[in-house]
Amino acid sequence: MKEHEISREDAMAKALKLLSGAKTVFLATNGSHGHPNLRAMAPVKTEGVNTLWFSTSRGSSKVDELAHSDKAVVYGYSPRNMSEFRLWGSVEVLDDAGSRELVWAEALREHFPEGVNDPNLLVLRFSAVSGMYMAKDGKSGVFEA
Amino acid sequence: MKEHEISREDAMAKALKLLSGAKTVFLATNGSHGHPNLRAMAPVKTEGVNTLWFSTSRGSSKVDELAHSDKAVVYGYSPRNMSEFRLWGSVEVLDDAGSRELVWAEALREHFPEGVNDPNLLVLRFSAVSGMYMAKDGKSGVFEA
Repeated sequence: MKEHEISREDAMAKALKLLSGAKTVFLATNGSHGHPNLRAMAPVKTEGVNTLWFSTSRGSSKVDELAHSDKAVVYGYSPRNMSEFRLWGSVEVLDDAGSRELVWAEALREHFPEGVNDPNLLVLRFSAVSGMYMAKDGKSGVFEA
Repeated sequence: MKEHEISREDAMAKALKLLSGAKTVFLATNGSHGHPNLRAMAPVKTEGVNTLWFSTSRGSSKVDELAHSDKAVVYGYSPRNMSEFRLWGSVEVLDDAGSRELVWAEALREHFPEGVNDPNLLVLRFSAVSGMYMAKDGKSGVFEA
């Protein structure tokens, strides 16, 4: 596979386009017993490819995992044409009212019946350091976020 | 989140059903610089939830990653109802004619023009040790594979 055939600017633009069109991305963390872990998640807010916010519940395994290692990868792909992107970075677990307000939507009430101040509602803020985009034909590019 | 409300047998059966219906699963590995890594992949053959085979190319980053750590997780989910499964295990990288024949399909020729004996074609065999299934409502169960 030939690497870095797409310029940094183009790779970042294409990753952003994929991210913007994705209802679901995949957040991988360092799990327990030396295994990685991952799950499908819907970003509730994004700023470019740099920062992604997610909601989660306090009892989630990822909250424990992120307490041990904040290193994470966000992955997304287009099932239509199998292009894909990765964002490497770290995740902060936020537990303040402002962050909860930032991610709150009424659709969350199913899981957080007490609403925006539900004590089980936590916020994950993923901050990217770098990223990559790969097209279906294998052409790829990396970028700093 | 309440854990283990689904029996082992039922959790394994439901994970197998999700896996059997999945065109795409997500394979997470221990990547570089302490980050996990992951990608969408199509299993080319499965035996229950125990063993999954994938094809890959010799130049793939996952081949390097698996040489450093064979620990991996296979994740799948239903976009329709957000139920999900995980299989924890390890991956062997196979480079023999029999394994290549096991995974070969003409659709691979796009990436491996020399066919079943293309020297870039490698086979990943994932062997599960344990797994989990979680329904949309958060009810979950674990099982030994």
